[in-house]
Amino acid sequence: MRAVTIQSDQSLKVEKFARPKARSGELLIRVEAAGLNRADLLQRAGHYPAPPGASDILGLEVVGRVEAVGEDTSRFKAGDRVCALLPGGGYAEYAVADEGSVLPVPEDMSAADACCFPEAVFTVWANVFDRAGLKSGEAFLCHGGTSGIGVSAIQMARLMGASKVFATAGTAEKCVLAETLGADRAINYKSEDFDVVIEEAGGVDVILDMVGGDYVARNIKACRPDGRIINIAYMDGFKTEVDFLPVMIKRLSLMATTLRARPNEEKRRLRDALEAAIWPHVMDGTLRPVLDSTFVLADAHSAHARMQSGAHSGKIILMMH
Amino acid sequence: MRAVTIQSDQSLKVEKFARPKARSGELLIRVEAAGLNRADLLQRAGHYPAPPGASDILGLEVVGRVEAVGEDTSRFKAGDRVCALLPGGGYAEYAVADEGSVLPVPEDMSAADACCFPEAVFTVWANVFDRAGLKSGEAFLCHGGTSGIGVSAIQMARLMGASKVFATAGTAEKCVLAETLGADRAINYKSEDFDVVIEEAGGVDVILDMVGGDYVARNIKACRPDGRIINIAYMDGFKTEVDFLPVMIKRLSLMATTLRARPNEEKRRLRDALEAAIWPHVMDGTLRPVLDSTFVLADAHSAHARMQSGAHSGKIILMMH
Repeated sequence: MRAVTIQSDQSLKVEKFARPKARSGELLIRVEAAGLNRADLLQRAGHYPAPPGASDILGLEVVGRVEAVGEDTSRFKAGDRVCALLPGGGYAEYAVADEGSVLPVPEDMSAADACCFPEAVFTVWANVFDRAGLKSGEAFLCHGGTSGIGVSAIQMARLMGASKVFATAGTAEKCVLAETLGADRAINYKSEDFDVVIEEAGGVDVILDMVGGDYVARNIKACRPDGRIINIAYMDGFKTEVDFLPVMIKRLSLMATTLRARPNEEKRRLRDALEAAIWPHVMDGTLRPVLDSTFVLADAHSAHARMQSGAHSGKIILMMH
Repeated sequence: MRAVTIQSDQSLKVEKFARPKARSGELLIRVEAAGLNRADLLQRAGHYPAPPGASDILGLEVVGRVEAVGEDTSRFKAGDRVCALLPGGGYAEYAVADEGSVLPVPEDMSAADACCFPEAVFTVWANVFDRAGLKSGEAFLCHGGTSGIGVSAIQMARLMGASKVFATAGTAEKCVLAETLGADRAINYKSEDFDVVIEEAGGVDVILDMVGGDYVARNIKACRPDGRIINIAYMDGFKTEVDFLPVMIKRLSLMATTLRARPNEEKRRLRDALEAAIWPHVMDGTLRPVLDSTFVLADAHSAHARMQSGAHSGKIILMMH
């Protein structure tokens, strides 16, 4: 099969690989589409190695058809159209996934559209709902509101009954998109101070952040009492001075997680929960896929360049054929 | 009635006050004993003002008998022996408490012994169990292991099935006490690096901290994946640089709370939960009161000096008579 490898000079190259085999509990998927994630850029740069046992091939999510099932699987069969969260190996014609990280995909949804969801829905569920516990009636702020994660987070918060949804984005067009997706108020972080806007609007209960740096202090400012701030990345830096006085006075929680390194059983637990709460809205089309662009596998470097530029809105997808 | 007031030079003085009245939902308690808390020292120094509506008189917990009941109370009646968590007003012959912050006290337990529990049990429950969610089978580290909070936290973690309980303390004698109360391993922080000891022992899932400062980074080091660090004070400083990389990689939560400013309904919810899980062990004597010393009301300044010195182990109590 063809798959993308990282060369020693960090360039990407399509090479021939042996097709992987489904081990016990796994499915072999014939990949139609693979999603890009910012973690792929970090891994390519050498900062986010694959966890033990995972493929060295890039790619954390795919859409395709089940080609073969390993022992001790029960739910899916060859030919089923599925999407999957992967610990690696997605930029390839075939990929293996733990059955507990797999979800069904409607027959009539394009592979590129379907591939907008797996990593985003898993990540938002695991962080905003499972860990930070956003409840119906609470207010939510999503940074990176038009990122692949953000476009799902805004819609999911709305679906789950958030009282108010704020989003940040870097252009007027992106702010319009965020509001179209359900944000009550999108804040252009280049022209407005989000923490001031949100504090004046009464604050929020949960913040999903991937910026870090000085956003740590500004998120604390934007939180209501008993608020939860959850980071899935720290693009502006991991190290920052924190004043814990307002954290204590407002009884806040500063949380951070990654998804990739979690055990399979934990991913299965998350899959089961999000399948009950969110996935019906994917299957019936309520949750809108926001597709930025597609690239063929051999053009993965251009797909990475687009993500690196930050010009995209929604998901960037690699097509196998 | 007599009560302790803070003079403009921060000295303490016993003065005459009108006896407070039980408003709707409140009980008037004839106080036998009032507990000292570190927050009292902060309030005296002007750093921790009473929340709106609370008495300016110091004191966050008392033991005594119900003298009168306000309207819309139902559970307690005049003559009942009780303890109460207060937003203020405890260093006095009479105090009012919201009925949802009151718990029964055995007739045969001394007032000083009974007064070892209310603030400590509320605080440990609210932080270690309710917010940080310490579960049976998880490992726990309690800083300040022989503080009024610590002596209850060690015992409560043990009762609730913690797999391993660590505590820090500043003398060999205090370490012995912490281990007598149920700590598997007490660490003298003056001669050992707690973070190294605990990391080598496999880490902990929940940490109760009141130190802050460089303990923030050291707590992060001592935590296992999915660990929760919860602060009830930052005696070594609120401001510190945090490296969020290990927070993210280990999927940690950094939390902090105060109890005093929470709404009465929230305190009632906590009271109901801790009464079910912990209070039976107070009533039957399983949870051991650790009384450091008692002082008469007029000697409150000596009680404060003892707490300030850090020489105490367990609770310092003011006796009304």
